[in-house]
Amino acid sequence: MKKIIGIIGGMGPLATADLFRKIIDVTEAERDQDHIRVLIDSNTNIPDRTKAILYDGADPVPEILKSAHMLEEDGADLLIMPCNTAHYYFETISHSVDIPMLSMIEETARRLSRMNIKKAGLLATDGTVESQIYSDTFKKYDIETIVPDSKGQNEVMKLIYKGVKAGNWNRDLGGFRKTLTDMRERKSELFVLGCTELPVAFQHYDFGVPVIDPTLELAKCAVYFVGGKIKSETKEKIC
Amino acid sequence: MKKIIGIIGGMGPLATADLFRKIIDVTEAERDQDHIRVLIDSNTNIPDRTKAILYDGADPVPEILKSAHMLEEDGADLLIMPCNTAHYYFETISHSVDIPMLSMIEETARRLSRMNIKKAGLLATDGTVESQIYSDTFKKYDIETIVPDSKGQNEVMKLIYKGVKAGNWNRDLGGFRKTLTDMRERKSELFVLGCTELPVAFQHYDFGVPVIDPTLELAKCAVYFVGGKIKSETKEKIC
Repeated sequence: MKKIIGIIGGMGPLATADLFRKIIDVTEAERDQDHIRVLIDSNTNIPDRTKAILYDGADPVPEILKSAHMLEEDGADLLIMPCNTAHYYFETISHSVDIPMLSMIEETARRLSRMNIKKAGLLATDGTVESQIYSDTFKKYDIETIVPDSKGQNEVMKLIYKGVKAGNWNRDLGGFRKTLTDMRERKSELFVLGCTELPVAFQHYDFGVPVIDPTLELAKCAVYFVGGKIKSETKEKIC
Repeated sequence: MKKIIGIIGGMGPLATADLFRKIIDVTEAERDQDHIRVLIDSNTNIPDRTKAILYDGADPVPEILKSAHMLEEDGADLLIMPCNTAHYYFETISHSVDIPMLSMIEETARRLSRMNIKKAGLLATDGTVESQIYSDTFKKYDIETIVPDSKGQNEVMKLIYKGVKAGNWNRDLGGFRKTLTDMRERKSELFVLGCTELPVAFQHYDFGVPVIDPTLELAKCAVYFVGGKIKSETKEKIC
């Protein structure tokens, strides 16, 4: 019986659609039936994760757990979650189900470790940076996390919110490019696109720096985990 | 309580991702929580619909019904299905559940009727054309369905299979353009992109003809049906 990937989604919906699309794109398939079966709950009742972590907002965990349990009962063999910030609650969620769950952060760290990266630049929202979900995980793999200075972090936030989320592609990117240069000078060997909006920006502009897309890593690891075939051109990159 | 759209998917996975993406894109939302909750079963165990209809292949209905019932039990308030050919079984599926189901074909016909279209050109696979799912529905709305001649139908199939599905964008499109011209001469006022691969081709090339995308119509109608807000720029187009 074909195994099933369950996606706890809705955080946000576009990131969920992006992960789903990447699962399809990395799978070696000639016909519909060669593809992995995927169950998605794009559960937009889940409260904002950044607000909960930084500003004492409504707890997203109860609603996340409802989705997790529903997907498990529906037959999912594996759970994944396309939201960097929600990984702050990863342990709680994964311990509440009897099926495996893959962490986007952990799989990114494992991949960087296999690439022998020692210093990785983190481009992410304030919530992801301040909750230290990347830096704590990277530490276990002896990878140092380089974050922008406060002015640079502000440039990252502007690119995410005033650029990608607003669909404004004509912004002056001088400040953001300077942030990348500064992080390169501080020995970032590669940049982690630690916000699901950032791969969109990096496809749109040529920033000329090496990057890793955690959503793509998660897609590949999930397909591999449930026994799907990975396309040969991405094979060298699987977990 | 927010209503839930259930998608019977996997026919194929890319068309499912496309419908999901269009649901997100047409929704007026400033934050994740403003979006519709969507449950998706990208059920790639469903056998090929064209093979079943034209070549006596395995019956897809039992597996489609499993997905439909699961989505209903999980709380979906509405079912939709992003596969033109699968609409051949629409009555059977919609009668087997206690929640409403929207037909992509019917919603397209209703939209054409509101646009006062009398003759619509159908661009679709052999399976969709031969099963007459569009022409039978259009007839109810006094819309005549214009299909390509056999040479033209072959050009449509080549564009779908050797062009879009194969990712080959350098094909000679002379034959396909001639087919469109021929159908225009036979008074097609507009072209129905009746295969989920075709909107991709029509975004890529400029064929200079008016079209309707049934997946987009279905997305708008579904969001509207469950009480979501539609973006103002697409408002005039809702069902």
